[in-house]
Amino acid sequence: MLKAILKRRSIRAFKDEKVQEERIKEILKAAMLAPTARNTQTWKFTVIENRDVLNSLAAAQKAMSMMKTAAFAIVVSGDRDILNDEAYLYVHSGAAIENMLLEAYEEGLGTCWCAVGPIKERMDLIKETLKLPDNLLPVGIVAFGVADEVKEDVDRYDPDKVNWVK
Amino acid sequence: MLKAILKRRSIRAFKDEKVQEERIKEILKAAMLAPTARNTQTWKFTVIENRDVLNSLAAAQKAMSMMKTAAFAIVVSGDRDILNDEAYLYVHSGAAIENMLLEAYEEGLGTCWCAVGPIKERMDLIKETLKLPDNLLPVGIVAFGVADEVKEDVDRYDPDKVNWVK
Repeated sequence: MLKAILKRRSIRAFKDEKVQEERIKEILKAAMLAPTARNTQTWKFTVIENRDVLNSLAAAQKAMSMMKTAAFAIVVSGDRDILNDEAYLYVHSGAAIENMLLEAYEEGLGTCWCAVGPIKERMDLIKETLKLPDNLLPVGIVAFGVADEVKEDVDRYDPDKVNWVK
Repeated sequence: MLKAILKRRSIRAFKDEKVQEERIKEILKAAMLAPTARNTQTWKFTVIENRDVLNSLAAAQKAMSMMKTAAFAIVVSGDRDILNDEAYLYVHSGAAIENMLLEAYEEGLGTCWCAVGPIKERMDLIKETLKLPDNLLPVGIVAFGVADEVKEDVDRYDPDKVNWVK
């Protein structure tokens, strides 16, 4: 099993350590290596390093409280101007976000993925805070930083979720 | 950069080699390690090893022609009985599928992800062929096998897709 897949857990407490821009770019590069239908690359990324913006998100939304200690966050949005179908915007964003979580683990960082869409209150908060244009559908926000908590591995394999056609 | 993220490409031609069930289970285990909102684990998996079923999908849908040589395929569906919101079913499936693609690379296998939902014709084909219950939304089908083609690495990093809030 790929170590990053096995070891990645949601981390909600981070150490007060900055992350160099080069490492953030590796994470973005990993996101953009995720496949998309007909290579449409429907995603847009907003990297938030500003402390005040991170703090305001943490204060506004309990589900985003981990932004308080995050070194940075990345909002992944789907661009309706590229492909005007939310199903694709969501599924493509899911794959890109997973690559970010795994590459961040490889870079020695902890992560926590928080859903934005389809929750109206969270979408409004993100759109207003970041002044996103109307064509962008914010799908998720991920907190990144050096982990300040330790979590055990889990095994979620559930044979009841699998059907075999032999 | 994680080697699996960098090296994974869509593979549409596979060698005539079987894949042991233990390796398929590692891929499923990787899928189920993908995060889901509130750990809802909305996915269901249908593993197709039957040659006739794979051939019939290849014959019925040009986009699934790679099933003709695939050793097996996995359909990832979202379960409306667990969470009745397509946005979550799609975004969760995207993350789980990405884990499958990466773990398959780690296992020495090539993969090709083909969208099923939201394309009605493909959803009907999959639902009818596999006799999926109505609560399952088939999101994607992935072909797996030992690669019989070689593809170069790509770098898709596009700075125009990124905004920085410093």
